[in-house]
Amino acid sequence: MTKDLRINPDRMLGAFNQLALIGATGDGGVNRPTFSEAHLAARQWFREQIEASGLEFHTDGAGNHSAVIPVVARERSDRSNLRHDNGIASSQKTLLATTPTLLLGSHLDSVPSGGRFDGALGVMAAFEVLRTIKDAGIKLKFNLEAIDFTDEEGTLVGLLGSAALAGRLSRQALQSPRGGRPALVEGMKRAGLSEESMLSAARPKDSLAGYLELHIEQGKRLERAKIDVGIVSAIVGIASYRLSFIGRADHAGSTTMEDRLDASLGASAFTLAAREVVMKDFPNCVVNAGKMEFEPGAFNIVPARVDLALEFRSPDEEEFKRLDSVLMERAKEEAERFGLELGIEFLGRHSPSLMDTKVQHTFADVCNDLGLSHMSLASGAGHDGQSFDGLCPVGMIFVPSADGASHSPREFTAWPDCVNGANVLLQTVLRLAG
Amino acid sequence: MTKDLRINPDRMLGAFNQLALIGATGDGGVNRPTFSEAHLAARQWFREQIEASGLEFHTDGAGNHSAVIPVVARERSDRSNLRHDNGIASSQKTLLATTPTLLLGSHLDSVPSGGRFDGALGVMAAFEVLRTIKDAGIKLKFNLEAIDFTDEEGTLVGLLGSAALAGRLSRQALQSPRGGRPALVEGMKRAGLSEESMLSAARPKDSLAGYLELHIEQGKRLERAKIDVGIVSAIVGIASYRLSFIGRADHAGSTTMEDRLDASLGASAFTLAAREVVMKDFPNCVVNAGKMEFEPGAFNIVPARVDLALEFRSPDEEEFKRLDSVLMERAKEEAERFGLELGIEFLGRHSPSLMDTKVQHTFADVCNDLGLSHMSLASGAGHDGQSFDGLCPVGMIFVPSADGASHSPREFTAWPDCVNGANVLLQTVLRLAG
Repeated sequence: MTKDLRINPDRMLGAFNQLALIGATGDGGVNRPTFSEAHLAARQWFREQIEASGLEFHTDGAGNHSAVIPVVARERSDRSNLRHDNGIASSQKTLLATTPTLLLGSHLDSVPSGGRFDGALGVMAAFEVLRTIKDAGIKLKFNLEAIDFTDEEGTLVGLLGSAALAGRLSRQALQSPRGGRPALVEGMKRAGLSEESMLSAARPKDSLAGYLELHIEQGKRLERAKIDVGIVSAIVGIASYRLSFIGRADHAGSTTMEDRLDASLGASAFTLAAREVVMKDFPNCVVNAGKMEFEPGAFNIVPARVDLALEFRSPDEEEFKRLDSVLMERAKEEAERFGLELGIEFLGRHSPSLMDTKVQHTFADVCNDLGLSHMSLASGAGHDGQSFDGLCPVGMIFVPSADGASHSPREFTAWPDCVNGANVLLQTVLRLAG
Repeated sequence: MTKDLRINPDRMLGAFNQLALIGATGDGGVNRPTFSEAHLAARQWFREQIEASGLEFHTDGAGNHSAVIPVVARERSDRSNLRHDNGIASSQKTLLATTPTLLLGSHLDSVPSGGRFDGALGVMAAFEVLRTIKDAGIKLKFNLEAIDFTDEEGTLVGLLGSAALAGRLSRQALQSPRGGRPALVEGMKRAGLSEESMLSAARPKDSLAGYLELHIEQGKRLERAKIDVGIVSAIVGIASYRLSFIGRADHAGSTTMEDRLDASLGASAFTLAAREVVMKDFPNCVVNAGKMEFEPGAFNIVPARVDLALEFRSPDEEEFKRLDSVLMERAKEEAERFGLELGIEFLGRHSPSLMDTKVQHTFADVCNDLGLSHMSLASGAGHDGQSFDGLCPVGMIFVPSADGASHSPREFTAWPDCVNGANVLLQTVLRLAG
């Protein structure tokens, strides 16, 4: 009975723990920003794991790495005869582009000094689901693909690999990436990729049978409610900007306070104001001033320029637009108040995405059959599923995050919760594609 | 008549303009932070200028570079026979340590992306004064030394070379420099210096006959009052701290605003509060938050830590102490308000310094004789003269800064004003040491 099939928790844990060593920061966290040495090492390790498992390995021009079970299982001898083209088995590439594929994904990149669960759990669970299905010899009606997407976190662009695969990556996004163009160019070079290869990774809409992802919640709702599994109803929209508050460099001793055009004042006032506005008028939204860069940045020079990394999120499109205009207006006001100029660089935007209703119901049925409690919740974090919005059914489940910590070495999910999530993923795949 | 002696303005301008090319940023400014390649190149150039001029060249374990006219002029043939010890002519070293020396100084280092006048004018004027006196064959009662002090600006330590020469450099200042210990260690290595050599640069108090400096005002008072020369009455005290606001890294999407411990809030609130407090309660003082460094510093991570570079100044010791305690108290309050921890790292302090009264009177007499208008003012900027406070008579004059701009490529002083300053310096030397 496929209904009784379960993943192998020890095998998944072994792989998860090996992966957590790559880029480990020694405090339980990992540092694997996109295309860093540690990130590329994690991908190389994943590739070796796939090849050792007997699953097919696939990569594309966006650097996405996957394990694949083709809808018609081919013989090993066939596979070994395939000629590789940029590391991509060309007959396999055709297969994935022409035959419907159910994608199970997440990402192996991390934020700087992040946790070992974010993304990694989803990829390891997807990989384990494929190994379990392969071992059981089950035939599915779609290709099944466990994919590690490039740059989900946005060190460079954000949802880069999934947008490329979905055919939604624009040249403009590559020209004005939030991590800065030099970092993107250098990163692509290090990974052996290019702008052209990125754009070549697009697959036809018809080839996308669906996208499912297991992820840690990165919030406290499941833990507080003592619920095993969260079934995601929607993913928040995210927008990011670089705001530049521009004043004038002056000697910090001989220039009176009144005579200064101090860029730090606009940036500081905006940071405080943005938080106040969101807490008061946009209670479902969040805002973050994640970084300020000071120019010239010396003790004894009045700051001439502060570049502020701004990101905000909303689960509702209407509210999202309103928040955007309120924040930009406020930035202008705070700049003016201190005699500063304001530069606004728009870096990217993902609209809020609704998850597929049928997939949500299947997740719920599976949880009930597995005896797991579940609840519906919106995701405050962005995820690769957004890239497939409107192209194919998208579904996501969450498992509890201890203390809600994420993007931090403190990130933790109890192993039984991870195993629950992987089993829900496995059973959902079997119901949707069996 | 020595009273009619004047510097050679064209020769000084030629040297000034050559120097301004070293580390030029193309916008009228220079970028010569201490021990940068450009800074070391400027020093090498200065050494060559000194040697070509026929003045004696001297350097010490702190990297200070000088041109010297010994009190008893020696023959060129004697000099060329001297054996050098670490680039220091040893009989000359003895001479400067045993015979009273009148120092004329400033510095060739600049703040990052600074102006071409700050420091450079003082060194070029002092050098020109020595060349003029040498050419005129005038015998003085002291050794006369035109010195370029190491790291006046504080890229590494601040007033480093003058403190070393004055015997006031502590090991602790070298252990916890405001530019960070690695930058100091690397910089000393690049310059061929060491902690021990730095400490060896101290000269006996008895050898210090006085210290005079010409500098640009770096403020608007002379320009607004249409006055030729400012005679400095006091140099403000300066203190610097690194304040660390410490919260917690969390996912910037899935962590509610209420659940965050966002380090940016404490740093921002303190920056605004410090300005308000100074403007309201300390009108003679200034404060600067010259830089903030965010950790981990990503769009989608709540800032876990912000290190803020704080500097404040006061012309009065009593007020200075009060401001210090008010600012530290306020930093604690703002950290607490947002649930943050506060780290306070004390980086250095110079008390306010009074200039020598007799030297101020001599400056005024000289200005009157030269037909230059003058006024008394306090220096809002720190200067190397502070290092000699209480050791020997210290005097400083300012020439007008266009629009008060300084520590900026916009820094400018009209050439006739620079020449006036150099002539006041020359005539003051002749009266004090003639």
